Amino acid sequence: MIRNAKISRWAGWGHEAHAVRLAERPRLLAYLTKQLGGMSSIVEAVPLERLSLDAGRLSEQERDSLRRVVGSQDVDFSAGDRAIHSLGKSYRDMIEARSGRLRHVTDAVVYPREERQIAELLAWAVREDCAIVPFGGGTSVVGGVEPCAGRHHATITLDLMNLAEKSLDDVSQLADIGAGAFGPDVERWLNDQGFSLGHFPQSFEFSTLGGWVATRSAGQQSTLYGKIEHMVEAVRVATPVGLIETRRVPASATGPSIVQCLTGSEGTLGVITRCTMRVRHRAPCGRFLSFLLPDWPTAIGFVRHVVQEDVYPSVVRLSDPQETQWLMDAGSEAGGLAKQLGRALVKRLAGWNGFDGDRMCLCILGLEGATDTVALLGERLKALAGASRALSLGSSPGESWKRDRFRLPYLRDELMARGIMVDTLETATTWTNLIRLYEEVKSRIRAALADQGTPGVVMTHVSHVYPTGASLYYTFLARQRPGNEIEQWESVKRAATRAIVDGGGTLSHHHGIGSEHRPLEAEHGSVAVGALRSLKAFLDPADVMNPGKLL
Amino acid sequence: MIRNAKISRWAGWGHEAHAVRLAERPRLLAYLTKQLGGMSSIVEAVPLERLSLDAGRLSEQERDSLRRVVGSQDVDFSAGDRAIHSLGKSYRDMIEARSGRLRHVTDAVVYPREERQIAELLAWAVREDCAIVPFGGGTSVVGGVEPCAGRHHATITLDLMNLAEKSLDDVSQLADIGAGAFGPDVERWLNDQGFSLGHFPQSFEFSTLGGWVATRSAGQQSTLYGKIEHMVEAVRVATPVGLIETRRVPASATGPSIVQCLTGSEGTLGVITRCTMRVRHRAPCGRFLSFLLPDWPTAIGFVRHVVQEDVYPSVVRLSDPQETQWLMDAGSEAGGLAKQLGRALVKRLAGWNGFDGDRMCLCILGLEGATDTVALLGERLKALAGASRALSLGSSPGESWKRDRFRLPYLRDELMARGIMVDTLETATTWTNLIRLYEEVKSRIRAALADQGTPGVVMTHVSHVYPTGASLYYTFLARQRPGNEIEQWESVKRAATRAIVDGGGTLSHHHGIGSEHRPLEAEHGSVAVGALRSLKAFLDPADVMNPGKLL
Repeated sequence: MIRNAKISRWAGWGHEAHAVRLAERPRLLAYLTKQLGGMSSIVEAVPLERLSLDAGRLSEQERDSLRRVVGSQDVDFSAGDRAIHSLGKSYRDMIEARSGRLRHVTDAVVYPREERQIAELLAWAVREDCAIVPFGGGTSVVGGVEPCAGRHHATITLDLMNLAEKSLDDVSQLADIGAGAFGPDVERWLNDQGFSLGHFPQSFEFSTLGGWVATRSAGQQSTLYGKIEHMVEAVRVATPVGLIETRRVPASATGPSIVQCLTGSEGTLGVITRCTMRVRHRAPCGRFLSFLLPDWPTAIGFVRHVVQEDVYPSVVRLSDPQETQWLMDAGSEAGGLAKQLGRALVKRLAGWNGFDGDRMCLCILGLEGATDTVALLGERLKALAGASRALSLGSSPGESWKRDRFRLPYLRDELMARGIMVDTLETATTWTNLIRLYEEVKSRIRAALADQGTPGVVMTHVSHVYPTGASLYYTFLARQRPGNEIEQWESVKRAATRAIVDGGGTLSHHHGIGSEHRPLEAEHGSVAVGALRSLKAFLDPADVMNPGKLL
Repeated sequence: MIRNAKISRWAGWGHEAHAVRLAERPRLLAYLTKQLGGMSSIVEAVPLERLSLDAGRLSEQERDSLRRVVGSQDVDFSAGDRAIHSLGKSYRDMIEARSGRLRHVTDAVVYPREERQIAELLAWAVREDCAIVPFGGGTSVVGGVEPCAGRHHATITLDLMNLAEKSLDDVSQLADIGAGAFGPDVERWLNDQGFSLGHFPQSFEFSTLGGWVATRSAGQQSTLYGKIEHMVEAVRVATPVGLIETRRVPASATGPSIVQCLTGSEGTLGVITRCTMRVRHRAPCGRFLSFLLPDWPTAIGFVRHVVQEDVYPSVVRLSDPQETQWLMDAGSEAGGLAKQLGRALVKRLAGWNGFDGDRMCLCILGLEGATDTVALLGERLKALAGASRALSLGSSPGESWKRDRFRLPYLRDELMARGIMVDTLETATTWTNLIRLYEEVKSRIRAALADQGTPGVVMTHVSHVYPTGASLYYTFLARQRPGNEIEQWESVKRAATRAIVDGGGTLSHHHGIGSEHRPLEAEHGSVAVGALRSLKAFLDPADVMNPGKLL
């Protein structure tokens, strides 16, 4: 029924077969029930088949015209296809999907096979007064694929799954990859030839290269491999006024970076159709280390020194005391520190070393590279850890994290089904500002939850680390306010966003802006955003490209 | 007489005291005389004091008005100040300076002490119909500071020497530095606190931070430390429609990169007033290695493998056979391979190992970092060199290069005084395309020189190396065509630029576009350049910012 078999299931994450069932995880269930003061019994989502959608805003004449332009086999008007392309994976999206009440529904889904079809579709959209929403894997958590029509009368969603061709230049270590190629397809294809892109966002299994580039995605190994914008050598973008194809050059001094203007444009300037990506040999050696640190400021200082001393781990995950508690107490089901080491043993170890159990922080570090490099950096890491009074917990917490790293979104489905609000948000700032911003955002989220009468759990980790600063990634959970789920959630998001903007952080380190984090002026000011709008006005004079997002 | 004591002398490079005298370097003189088929005797340049300039295009009323806006102590209308701010350091500029015949002369030089003065000056320029040319060290070799008035009736040059304040955040390793700070001041100030920016363009001693950022400069150690655009965390830019100040964040997903739009804007979007730069601890250990490789393709393969195997040297300088010959034969005066090792010994060594003296290539590599890292990478480098049949020449060629690395521009002055055309140009491309582009550009430069009746020397090196490709840096020398120096030079530049564009290279890897490498469409196409123009039209609606450059 759904053409694109690679996108996540309706009203949930990934594949049904991998769903997390709390009934099978009694310890996690008990932990959450205690922390959140109770949990409802499961309410199933409205299935896709039972949605009642109208026929959309395109007249039969317009549908025929669209069929003529892109070919009737490459356009779909079915309710199921339209519905599943009308939502991303934000908390708001999931509330809408579960209830079967969608704010916006796209009017058609087009599956182009060639760039030419896109050019013709964009011209058609301008003529016929329709908005265009590019769609990769549909995993946006910021409303990036929401089919807002803007000032237009209808929306066409462009599913890029058929633009997935790939070719490798192994001398220059450059791969041309179609925007619609999904994470596992890209990585498997590269691995087979001895290469890797090294980009593993949490959405990896269900997101696409084009989506990553359009949103400035960060993978879990970005500390070593960089964010996606560091991996893009060149792009091809179909805009309403013509194609932009940037040169494949390693660096240049030819004015403002066109590539860095199009990267992060979130579909508002044109459709990214193909990217030339910098790939690298698969690392011959990989190794995890993990440490328990006595407190958050010491732990932050430790990871800062790690990157500032030129040890670039592939993975850095530093959990704050609340997240460390969760990993300790929620048991093996939560991806298991306790399973690997024995919760009691870790607590005793911490006690022997004078750590306060309420303040200690878990840090997982991954090293990748040549065998001798990994050995050298491992020694340097241990020395830095020693200087921070860290306790080594060996490699298993890291290995366990790696095994389960794409599973967490499944837990959200089960929690939402049981009446729990659960969401994540993120920012980045300088080291100097990190602890202050961390505290401020955390306390504002807590206060917002309490204001809603639903005090909850807020936990944080640092997972993308740079010599000059780091990201902060928050997870919050609380009981839903039935009937007011969206208002409750919006009040928390609003409080957090205000704290981030006022506190000098960025509106997003890797989720993007979409429709949820506007206005962009809050970060860049009106002059810079005005300049970006003028760029859009040139490339997309009729404002058909993903209206209501980013700008 | 000239207020800004830090800029290069009139009609030449740097300080008079460091001038190169070929009369004192008989071997180099003999080499060049032979290669170029003769050399004229010295013709001195017209001294600055003897230039005859008119009073400029500003009326006395306008001068008064300008004095009121910026303060009379911060504006200069003197002929000397105007003249020296009217030229960069391109071959064309030097021809003009030496002859005392300037195409364009600026009408006033303003030395702002605060951002507020700049904002007021820009508003004045719009009102009074004047162009503004930001000026750092004036070392542009692409006409970047040429005072083209565009459609305006006069030009004001903005010397930023007084915007040189600095402050360091040593926790986040970020330095706020005023645009007018000169290279040695920046580096010395950082070194005193244990840090380094790691940016050493050949113009280092006479160029400024703002100039580097405005032109996407590359330092000689860019292979490890990155180009300047990789070092910029945030910028402040005064535009005619207001100030842009980007956030100090290590990375973000908040739309197109504003920083990467302003970096490389060459003064056409506004005046960069201050940059927040990523700095790093001074490397505790540094070491040079050098190798002789049997031929160009083998040598290219060697440096490619070096970076693709994650050995990032701080310095990579690979000379093609012609440049290697020059370094061998021109003797110690040219910065001395031969002096260090004995030319005869090197030749014998090469012969014993079956190298063809006409094909072999010298490669200098520098390693920097922690002592154990440098040791490890040194071993890996030697293994890679062995696999390429490279002969080690030890450390002295690298040390000698480092000592003399800022001296080469002085030689140009002496050569031009003796009737020799000498210039450099550069590009970058992928590894796959590198040898083809290298050959094509070289042969077109040679052909253009021959067409002018002045066959000459063309030599090339690779000095900025990336996993996906590298730069190509050409030096060409030939006897001047007296009276037709500019036409002769333009014909060579035109041929080389055409070869670069047709061959898939970038118009510039680090010199920039300025007025010499336009139109930018040749590289980016009309859609992308149209988008950049719309951005400029928003920020600079009256087109007062550095007209005739870049866009």
